[in-house]
Amino acid sequence: MNKPRELDATLLEELTALLGSRVTTSRGVREHHGKDESYYPYAPPDAVVFPHSTEEVRDVVEICRRHRTPMIPYGVGTSLEGHVLAANGGVCIDLSQMNRVLAVHADDLDATVQAGVTRKQLNEEIRHAGLMFPVDPGADATVGGMAATRASGTNAVRYGTMRENVLALTVVTADARVVRTARRPRKSAAGYDLTRLFVGSEGTLGIITEVTVRLYAIPEAMSAAVCSFRDMKGAVDTVIRTLQHGIPIARSEALCGLTMKAINAYNKTAYKEQPTLFLEFHGTEAGVREQAELVQEIAREHGGEGFEWATRPEDRTRLWSARHQAYFAGLQLRPGARAVSTDVCVPISRLTECIVETSADIARASMPIPLFGHVGDGNFHCMILVRPDEPADLEEAKAFNERLVNRALAMEGTCTGEHGIGSGKIGSLEKELGDAVDLMRALKRTFDPLNLMNPGKVVRLDA
Amino acid sequence: MNKPRELDATLLEELTALLGSRVTTSRGVREHHGKDESYYPYAPPDAVVFPHSTEEVRDVVEICRRHRTPMIPYGVGTSLEGHVLAANGGVCIDLSQMNRVLAVHADDLDATVQAGVTRKQLNEEIRHAGLMFPVDPGADATVGGMAATRASGTNAVRYGTMRENVLALTVVTADARVVRTARRPRKSAAGYDLTRLFVGSEGTLGIITEVTVRLYAIPEAMSAAVCSFRDMKGAVDTVIRTLQHGIPIARSEALCGLTMKAINAYNKTAYKEQPTLFLEFHGTEAGVREQAELVQEIAREHGGEGFEWATRPEDRTRLWSARHQAYFAGLQLRPGARAVSTDVCVPISRLTECIVETSADIARASMPIPLFGHVGDGNFHCMILVRPDEPADLEEAKAFNERLVNRALAMEGTCTGEHGIGSGKIGSLEKELGDAVDLMRALKRTFDPLNLMNPGKVVRLDA
Repeated sequence: MNKPRELDATLLEELTALLGSRVTTSRGVREHHGKDESYYPYAPPDAVVFPHSTEEVRDVVEICRRHRTPMIPYGVGTSLEGHVLAANGGVCIDLSQMNRVLAVHADDLDATVQAGVTRKQLNEEIRHAGLMFPVDPGADATVGGMAATRASGTNAVRYGTMRENVLALTVVTADARVVRTARRPRKSAAGYDLTRLFVGSEGTLGIITEVTVRLYAIPEAMSAAVCSFRDMKGAVDTVIRTLQHGIPIARSEALCGLTMKAINAYNKTAYKEQPTLFLEFHGTEAGVREQAELVQEIAREHGGEGFEWATRPEDRTRLWSARHQAYFAGLQLRPGARAVSTDVCVPISRLTECIVETSADIARASMPIPLFGHVGDGNFHCMILVRPDEPADLEEAKAFNERLVNRALAMEGTCTGEHGIGSGKIGSLEKELGDAVDLMRALKRTFDPLNLMNPGKVVRLDA
Repeated sequence: MNKPRELDATLLEELTALLGSRVTTSRGVREHHGKDESYYPYAPPDAVVFPHSTEEVRDVVEICRRHRTPMIPYGVGTSLEGHVLAANGGVCIDLSQMNRVLAVHADDLDATVQAGVTRKQLNEEIRHAGLMFPVDPGADATVGGMAATRASGTNAVRYGTMRENVLALTVVTADARVVRTARRPRKSAAGYDLTRLFVGSEGTLGIITEVTVRLYAIPEAMSAAVCSFRDMKGAVDTVIRTLQHGIPIARSEALCGLTMKAINAYNKTAYKEQPTLFLEFHGTEAGVREQAELVQEIAREHGGEGFEWATRPEDRTRLWSARHQAYFAGLQLRPGARAVSTDVCVPISRLTECIVETSADIARASMPIPLFGHVGDGNFHCMILVRPDEPADLEEAKAFNERLVNRALAMEGTCTGEHGIGSGKIGSLEKELGDAVDLMRALKRTFDPLNLMNPGKVVRLDA
């Protein structure tokens, strides 16, 4: 672990004058901030600061900039591509104490929150008003982190990703200016779309400190269902046909037999250990019933068996918490293992083919690899379970992922549907978009000429 | 009218060597390309070229760049803020002959088209497959132009604007490179969102030559309705309550009594000449019926009278063509007049207040000003009918629009919901977004260092 070598005393003094005890160089805190949920080795920052306001973030940026010190924004560390690693040291700006919901406009169906508010916290604070924030990546990530990584998750097929659900941002730029990217109306044609430029920029163009998001009325009726299939193809084809019929399904998750086995072991449930769809329908009572009947019929045509309903809130919660725990359940398939998570996304017409070919690759692997994902978007994940101290495992995982990315790219897909580029997929991005990456480098140089904002992520500047 | 002074013989020779007779300096063609649907005076280009492919556009850009000559992309000239005016002369790149639908992926619900394909043409070519492209700004604009101006229109409340419906673009950059901004999956977290950066950039960052858009299954049932109200407040409040209930209404247009009068005169219809809502519902038979009943009840609570249904396709078409002709119908209220179109958009909770205050301003005006708009988005238009040869009219219109923009900005709104900045709203953009415009200028300088791509639009570089 690197020592806080880079930080000269003056920088620390200036930060401390600004934030007092909310500056630390303690080893434990630095270690905690030097990793995310990915398999990448620790890369701790030299110091961690905990600002409470946009103005404090601005002042931290100004100080770091004067000292030419890298800055790494941090939410709750749930990212999956090494986004928060301090590869070049520097100051980690932990935004988790910026956790106030600043405004809820129930009539406008929007809310403005500080970047450190988590999605569950936001949902708790708006539930009494009959509102919800639907973007749900599983982990209880911060809204700022979700915006920074263009997160999505199980509800995206109906409600979109962070791209569609962020209305405006407050950003501190690399030159320590506070910029509001847009005002609050639903739509605008006022100039370049700065909001969308910062959504998904992973802290490399500026630091998101406040986020205005869209909210939705909690539907009158919500009902979930589980259905198992003889093969993955049947499950995926069911979802594709559903979308082609224009049925506005809210969630559609496919899980392989191995994932179901892990879920059963972890949750003491008794699902069939076969390829399975978890579905959810939102709407009016009658609308939900109608949607569900149509989908049940489509599922039956594709070999679906034993449609089971979960209409009571507690049953729905149990079902989705089982889905959300797939990651932790999967880890238990190989005690002591860490997961290398893949994240390809392809046009849905190619999804069955992509999953079938990937399943064949899984069958040849030396380790267990559960597969599950957001099939309504064409996005699925493989959890490659590696032993952290076995370099051969990691090599095998990387080779598997590279084959998977190449397969997805050959099918007009993307190397990342929702996890982002981070440190891990810079090469894949270049393979995917070619010359467009030159434009991204130009953007990075324009917004961050000193390369201090989360350096080493998204693009390589030495290319 | 300026002469083709700037273009030296070499430039014309090079363009002619490339495109033959698809290069012209004829006065008539230049005049036609020197204006759009706005009230701005002619500013014709020095030459007009008609490329057929991305490669030809690239070669035109390369030639113009070498000669330091401005380039103005042009679709069918339906923009409303002087986007196509050749303020500094130069070469107009008319993309209307790039009108091939390149690929329709019915299974993936997307299509890739050349920029000159119009939205009606696209809809005709996909209807047989049960598909539709819903973004509908009224005019039969090109898909490329709609992407360039971030267009939306009557369906945006349900289906989103071009921001949400463009999956990927092919763009020719200012340095004559062909860049594909993204691949074809529904979602991606692969790097900076170049697609959204070019959507709404109005030809100032590069020239859009191909567009991949989302398609939707034509709903099983569609039904439209007309309902009149004693006042505009009742109409607008009906829509707001509908949205707050989460009812997925497809279109909701409010029109003032004067607009209804103009429509009746133009179409020989007999609508009540009162504030009116035009509504549309998409879904299954049962779903549409249920939505419509809920909305009818909400309308009744807000003083709605005489709900009239249009379920047959021909009745729906008549209704929406009446809505789309509101612009041309409005022009007939004052023979010989041109329209200054306003375009503010506010959070919906402020919409009633904004429309009520604006109506009071209309009552004081010396000219007729019909008002109508996409109230589900918070966006409405005033058509200020000016006599083109009366400078006092234009002055009054500009002052009216400035008051309206200031009113919208004071309500956290935007100066433009869907028409864009063009030549006309550069000052309003600065008022709206302040420091954020500095970032836009930096983007413009990065992507177009010689300021040749539709110069004088969106941002002022001398500021």
